Amino acid sequence: MEQEVGGSRPPSCTKKMNKEKKLKPSKELPLGFVDRQEKELLTRDFIISNIKEVMIKYGFQYLETPSFEYTESIGKFLPDKERPDQGVFSFKDENNWLSLRYDLTAPLARYFAKNYQEISKPFKRYQLGTVWRNEKPGPGRFREFLQFDADFVGTKSLQADVELCVLISEIFEKCGLNKEEYIIKISSRKITENLFKKIKIDNNEQRLTILRALDKIDRLGWDEVKQLLGEGRKDKSGDFTKGANLNLSNIKIIEKELNKKSPDTEDLLEVFKIFKDYGFTNFEFDPSIIRGLEYYTGPIFEVNLKFDVTNNKGKVIQFGSIGGGGRYDNLVNNFGNFDAPATGISIGLDRLVYALMQKKEFKIKQSKPVVICVFDKNSMKEYINLQKILRDAGISTEIYPGESKLKKQMEYANKIKSPAVILYGEDEIKSEKPTLRDLNSGKEKSIAIKELINEIKKII
Amino acid sequence: MEQEVGGSRPPSCTKKMNKEKKLKPSKELPLGFVDRQEKELLTRDFIISNIKEVMIKYGFQYLETPSFEYTESIGKFLPDKERPDQGVFSFKDENNWLSLRYDLTAPLARYFAKNYQEISKPFKRYQLGTVWRNEKPGPGRFREFLQFDADFVGTKSLQADVELCVLISEIFEKCGLNKEEYIIKISSRKITENLFKKIKIDNNEQRLTILRALDKIDRLGWDEVKQLLGEGRKDKSGDFTKGANLNLSNIKIIEKELNKKSPDTEDLLEVFKIFKDYGFTNFEFDPSIIRGLEYYTGPIFEVNLKFDVTNNKGKVIQFGSIGGGGRYDNLVNNFGNFDAPATGISIGLDRLVYALMQKKEFKIKQSKPVVICVFDKNSMKEYINLQKILRDAGISTEIYPGESKLKKQMEYANKIKSPAVILYGEDEIKSEKPTLRDLNSGKEKSIAIKELINEIKKII
Repeated sequence: MEQEVGGSRPPSCTKKMNKEKKLKPSKELPLGFVDRQEKELLTRDFIISNIKEVMIKYGFQYLETPSFEYTESIGKFLPDKERPDQGVFSFKDENNWLSLRYDLTAPLARYFAKNYQEISKPFKRYQLGTVWRNEKPGPGRFREFLQFDADFVGTKSLQADVELCVLISEIFEKCGLNKEEYIIKISSRKITENLFKKIKIDNNEQRLTILRALDKIDRLGWDEVKQLLGEGRKDKSGDFTKGANLNLSNIKIIEKELNKKSPDTEDLLEVFKIFKDYGFTNFEFDPSIIRGLEYYTGPIFEVNLKFDVTNNKGKVIQFGSIGGGGRYDNLVNNFGNFDAPATGISIGLDRLVYALMQKKEFKIKQSKPVVICVFDKNSMKEYINLQKILRDAGISTEIYPGESKLKKQMEYANKIKSPAVILYGEDEIKSEKPTLRDLNSGKEKSIAIKELINEIKKII
Repeated sequence: MEQEVGGSRPPSCTKKMNKEKKLKPSKELPLGFVDRQEKELLTRDFIISNIKEVMIKYGFQYLETPSFEYTESIGKFLPDKERPDQGVFSFKDENNWLSLRYDLTAPLARYFAKNYQEISKPFKRYQLGTVWRNEKPGPGRFREFLQFDADFVGTKSLQADVELCVLISEIFEKCGLNKEEYIIKISSRKITENLFKKIKIDNNEQRLTILRALDKIDRLGWDEVKQLLGEGRKDKSGDFTKGANLNLSNIKIIEKELNKKSPDTEDLLEVFKIFKDYGFTNFEFDPSIIRGLEYYTGPIFEVNLKFDVTNNKGKVIQFGSIGGGGRYDNLVNNFGNFDAPATGISIGLDRLVYALMQKKEFKIKQSKPVVICVFDKNSMKEYINLQKILRDAGISTEIYPGESKLKKQMEYANKIKSPAVILYGEDEIKSEKPTLRDLNSGKEKSIAIKELINEIKKII
């Protein structure tokens, strides 16, 4: 995603500059981090309030774990070798290493284990939280994400997996997406497991190399992926990635299997039956869906948007999936001696916000204040009274928050996109008739205070 | 604040244990971090929605800066020598150091400078965000806080300072606190500045030692603080803190000045006049208010709750202030060659949540799902239909999310504090009359599906 990413320049304060007299710290952001503006934040709030409403309806508990965990508690669950330990922000704390969470799944597993005695089994929770990835900085690579996760822990029932897909759809539709605008793609780790049996791969290293290669079908296409399954692939820059060293006949078996049009694994047959019971149709079987994470054991989902998303230059970009998840029956029990089959789904909220804001039909209301201009500090009491009347009527209002000439005050009102200014000078105060200037039309009107609320409501 | 703090034990996986076979990662949290449960989170959501409503009404922009900044951008603004660099979580990133933000003020200053050309002057923004402090872990010491900040940048007008106090009051009252339950204490850095002139202190080091000592009046009382102003003080543990070495007559001058009942500095006289224009009365002048931060230049505020707050053992604790702020006219211009007088206020949201939850009158609604019991997997379609009917009626509902006997299902429903279970076995499906069991009264009733919604609404 080619959004604007912070920190295009290094800090202005280098060692050389330290010796200069007027030292200023950097105004820039570190690479991979961004400031977020009101429109984006309001859109995010809108999505989050929909999420919360749906999660209550579906009976999920609201939980929050902290940003830091012991590194050992999350380290084991880093996706794979391509994202090693340095993929997390870690910090030495007395005798232990702490890390900023990399996802919300490992903290859930830790929480479930820590509270095993007290909590319900099964345990259903949702969480909204920032996750951090210490990726190598580069264009479009963010290092901080807001994520939404919903999980079931302690159940083998595939009805749980189905509920996850259904609830995601309900959230999307509440956010204004229709069934033509998103799709949930479904596969199962059982398909690749069966494949590995068929072609007799039991080396974990090699399995991961194969999964990683298959995970790139979407981006690279089959021809390139076949090279990664074989001896390896040289990319455009000339970098060579070692392959999984499969022979041609095994590669063909894989290709055939991953191009199947309907599932034959027991888990997916049941999931699809339950989808039917729900009347849920907005999914498609896609065996080429892999999901990078090593820990999946059953059905896997990927949530994709189907409308065009553009970058800040207006160019349509390959947006990729906006979330996904799957069943992970052997992850949570890493923390204790209990059986804890689980399934979960995540949505990347920053990405969803970015996409949603691009939809023509999507509008979010930003309330900008009406500005009461300051003519004379001695009239402050009158301005304050007027401000109170408008605020009490639910109108966003401010007295110009400075000490400037009227021209500057008007510039300010235009800058903040105020809908109107109120001019309340000596004469106007005397007659109790402020002047309302509509900043869109430029028209001015002298209005009695008691009419003011109605007049303003017409133009905001 | 003696809340329960995470991580009472060190990680279970020490080096010695690494050699054992069944290695489990730690289930504990690092010291100073906590998991937050639904009731707390819903209370926080309630406060946050009140904040957002008030901030729109007052015409503040909604902004979010990232969790990380270049260390140099925040390092200069660490409060004082007692909280040195190691007070922040820092990470080496290629050639630069990054830090998790310590407060929301330094990021605002950086943001203002970075966007100086484009943004309005004055600039009014609010932010809700986590801040981190790498304190030495200990009981009751948190290292992660959710904070709310509202600031004006680019204005000398004391009307801005007044608005901050007024808006905080409006937020508190929206949250259900009345005027007897909180107070805003007010002083000015000008008072101590005048004092320093009077007793001829121009050594910055010594000024800070004096301010730090005075900041402890609340906690230690005047007798102990006088020792800190003089040669020094030995605390209960025997630790000696070096004093500011003032002579007795200067200490007396300070004591007299900080016990004044009404202000005589120009800034506070004006602030109090504007308070009067607002009809705002819920404040008191208290020259012993210091606020630790070195950067304040004018009026300073401290927000205090006046009702008893207890710890988890029911003992009333000294709760301290729940927030505060003040004018800082020389901080933002550290980032650039511009004049940017500013004023702001912060509230510690975790602390406010903690206090609010203790009020008897305060109630927050937690919706727990009605549980549809699973008798027979083959009836799943009927359960799903019933679930849909209830969910569509706005009732939090779930089909039991597992595969267990009825007894376990009932245990689960009780565990999650479900208001009711629905028994929908073969006979009940045939007659289209599910049995509703009220889990509070224990009563059961056979009810036609179309009556079910009304019956459930009576008991939730």
